[in-house]
This record gives sequence, structure tokens and C-alpha cells, in this order.
Amino acid sequence: MDIMLTYDVDTTSPEGRRRLRRVAKLCEGHGLRVQKSVFEIVTDNKTLLQLLDQLDTIIDTNTDSIRLYRLPGDGFDDVQTLGTAQIQPHREDLVL
Amino acid sequence: MDIMLTYDVDTTSPEGRRRLRRVAKLCEGHGLRVQKSVFEIVTDNKTLLQLLDQLDTIIDTNTDSIRLYRLPGDGFDDVQTLGTAQIQPHREDLVL
Repeated sequence: MDIMLTYDVDTTSPEGRRRLRRVAKLCEGHGLRVQKSVFEIVTDNKTLLQLLDQLDTIIDTNTDSIRLYRLPGDGFDDVQTLGTAQIQPHREDLVL
Repeated sequence: MDIMLTYDVDTTSPEGRRRLRRVAKLCEGHGLRVQKSVFEIVTDNKTLLQLLDQLDTIIDTNTDSIRLYRLPGDGFDDVQTLGTAQIQPHREDLVL
């Protein structure tokens, strides 16, 4: 399944910036970082649950916010962009 | 259609923070701000094109990034959250 994960943290504090770095490192192991706090992740239910568990130990649940949106099958190919944003390939085309 | 709009801008500069405020104000006229740079928008094709036109005049296309993801029909009701994030109602239930 295709998931968009967005993370909101107060990056004006060193602790917030540290948490963002840890969340980013963890999510980059699962997908692509397309914006400072936006990650595109191709995953399955089991791996997603493990990811959520790990995120829960990193974030400050009193101040930070994480949202996960489930996209349609072709969700990552159907992104509209402005400015420096680019469509990111998640799956290599097969050459037959 | 249900759209997620994410905006990436360097908020360490006053100009960047000003652009984020302008983008937020514009997008809040179309939907809900659920994180600092994430907006949930219920719209139609024509209004979306107008929004994109207006965003294009606000952002610095050399440094800023805007991404729009089209969600499935129940996309905003199917959001998983951690921390302070909450599901936002976009459509009032009808009382019959």
C-alpha cells in the first residue's frame, strides 16, 4: 500500500530538530523524503504497524503530530507539483 | 475530490515565513490546516486550478515546493494519527 506520512514538530527547539532527524532517518528506511516533513512510503500492514510502534517511542506525544494517509494504488504517480517539487519514482520499471 | 496539499518552504527566513502565512491563508479558504504545512482540501477541478494559479503567484518557485495528492473518497476519514494529530471532520453529518 502507498502511504503518505506527515510530521509536525516545533523545529525551533534543539529537541524538536533532533526528533525530526530521528523520524526522518526511520522513515527514510521505509520510503522517500519528498519534503522536510513529508514521506512517501510503500509498505504492508505488518511493517506499517512496526513503523508506528517505533515512531511512538521517538515523538513527544504531547507536542508532535504524525498523520498517515492511505493513497490509491497509483497515488504517487498522480501527484501535482509546483515549484521545486518533483514526482519521485518508487518502483523501477521492468525492462522485458 | 479530496486533496492533500503539502508545502515546503525555508521558514528560517522572514520572507519564507511570510510566504507560508500567505499560502496558509489562501488554503484555509479552501480547506483545513491540519499541520503547519499540510492542508486537507475538499474541492473540484475548476476551483483547484484557480487555487494552483494563485499559489503559483505566491511561492518562490526556485526554493519552495508544493505537492498535491488526490485521496480516495473516504481519504480524510481513513487517516491514522499519532501524538496530537486528530481526525478532522470535513462534512457535517446530516440529521434526518
